[in-house]
Amino acid sequence: MRSFFVLLATDMEKFQITILGCGSATPSPKHFTSSQVVDIRGKLFMVDCGEGTQIQLRRSRVAFARINHIFISHLHGDHCFGLLGMISTFGLLGRTAPLFIHAPQQLWSILEQEIEFYYHDLEFKVEFQGFDPAKTTVVYDDRSLTVTAFPLRHRVPCAGFLFREKPTADHLDREAADFYGVPQWDYTRIKEGGDFTAKDGTVIPHSSLTKPAEPGRSYAYCCDTAYNPSMIQLIKGVDLMYHDCTYADEDAERAKKHFHSTSVEAARTAKEAEAKRLILGHFSARYNDESILLDEATAIFPETVLAKENLTVSI
Amino acid sequence: MRSFFVLLATDMEKFQITILGCGSATPSPKHFTSSQVVDIRGKLFMVDCGEGTQIQLRRSRVAFARINHIFISHLHGDHCFGLLGMISTFGLLGRTAPLFIHAPQQLWSILEQEIEFYYHDLEFKVEFQGFDPAKTTVVYDDRSLTVTAFPLRHRVPCAGFLFREKPTADHLDREAADFYGVPQWDYTRIKEGGDFTAKDGTVIPHSSLTKPAEPGRSYAYCCDTAYNPSMIQLIKGVDLMYHDCTYADEDAERAKKHFHSTSVEAARTAKEAEAKRLILGHFSARYNDESILLDEATAIFPETVLAKENLTVSI
Repeated sequence: MRSFFVLLATDMEKFQITILGCGSATPSPKHFTSSQVVDIRGKLFMVDCGEGTQIQLRRSRVAFARINHIFISHLHGDHCFGLLGMISTFGLLGRTAPLFIHAPQQLWSILEQEIEFYYHDLEFKVEFQGFDPAKTTVVYDDRSLTVTAFPLRHRVPCAGFLFREKPTADHLDREAADFYGVPQWDYTRIKEGGDFTAKDGTVIPHSSLTKPAEPGRSYAYCCDTAYNPSMIQLIKGVDLMYHDCTYADEDAERAKKHFHSTSVEAARTAKEAEAKRLILGHFSARYNDESILLDEATAIFPETVLAKENLTVSI
Repeated sequence: MRSFFVLLATDMEKFQITILGCGSATPSPKHFTSSQVVDIRGKLFMVDCGEGTQIQLRRSRVAFARINHIFISHLHGDHCFGLLGMISTFGLLGRTAPLFIHAPQQLWSILEQEIEFYYHDLEFKVEFQGFDPAKTTVVYDDRSLTVTAFPLRHRVPCAGFLFREKPTADHLDREAADFYGVPQWDYTRIKEGGDFTAKDGTVIPHSSLTKPAEPGRSYAYCCDTAYNPSMIQLIKGVDLMYHDCTYADEDAERAKKHFHSTSVEAARTAKEAEAKRLILGHFSARYNDESILLDEATAIFPETVLAKENLTVSI
């Protein structure tokens, strides 16, 4: 068993994305269909779950059992056909913790029946939490993190997901606190925004006793989508963006027709959103050499990488 | 385009099995779940279709579009969760030919709904042909081949499949035919069993004018199953058998509990059935080194190989 201190040193600072699949509609010899795991301080969130996701999970170092929430962007098979198999395997591995599936509401009408048909003896609960992908909605919220679903532009209703850490309390400036005689029992109140009144009645403002906390880190998953300026405001300044890059620029017409993006559109979006970094994904099988996609994107937005299976990117 | 003669020389004599997946219930880093393709003279039949089957198909040399019939042994996810994705991909690849799915009747109650939910615009028909896995039933029959489903012993109703070529007409003995003056227009009748009456009234029996045809080749798929002597009579003398070998002999208790077979039981079955060759499959993920399974089986039935992904065995 790992000790608490090991957890502190590693997991508690983690914000990383592991790609399980980054191909488009049909699997290719190179890529699995869409799925990835977002690990935020040891809490694991899965985004999309195409066929073969559990196979990829097994090949990765991701701790299966720690995935408690799955977010599904839309109801195309390459984003959700892996759910049933994963639920089955979770059951076989003895899972008892509930599994939360956040997806367009409509999915439940079929998934509930599938679960009933295939699993009479599932020992954990599948908790379905439907949302409307046409609206911007907070789909997950805890003490330190918010996940917001927001509309993308695809052939069917489709959501992107913004993972954003909540800003933590400001850090106490220990030297200043000692100087003004702040008692230890009062630290929390001051870190959370309080001022301090010294024995002589002088009010020492919060800002003189603290250093501002780092802003919360953020990650935006934007797939599948055509160029979608409507989301820019929401994801402004995001630390990392994963964006649909099904096609190269020369296939822009095809991208338009299928409501996907080109490398150029993905990069342009990252630039307009003032993202810090960009991961390109959801590649069409037509490109034997995907470096064309990378070259086109980096010309516009240099901080770009190509997704690939088992790639892990940390923020 | 391949010419007719190329087809003649290769496909028209083919009887081969390609393994797409041979792991058991949960996928492992080593194995995909159950699926294989039986190619008989260029007609392609899929047997079982676990999650990831289409991924494996893409990596194999099997011609996707020529699969017209899929046989499903039972309704556990590791044998049928790949169907939906494959149907989807067939659609995306422009299939128009109907796809026949032969499976336990019950499957249709969920599959029909899934197809309706996910595909509004499928351009080919999925023709479902249900059967009762508790009975021995001919599930496919054409001019040259019969596929028979027969009961296995598993936790849920489960069928094995016997592929058997029909015996062809006897071969004409050209020398004898010339000697007795058989006219060319009468050849077919004689090959199919007729006698010949010479000009002087002498009856030359069929057996004097022909050489017997080779007996039809045969393949039995027996997975998932506990030791199942009830099928022996049906598959007697089979050229090739694929048999459940989930466990090693030391795990016989576990095999019994889960209605699977050990290596020893698989080999014993092949011996009792007087099979010519045996492929072991459906391996539990617990064996890092599967050679223990092979060693145990070959001690009883030497003509044994371990299944592995992309293995092709010809009869």
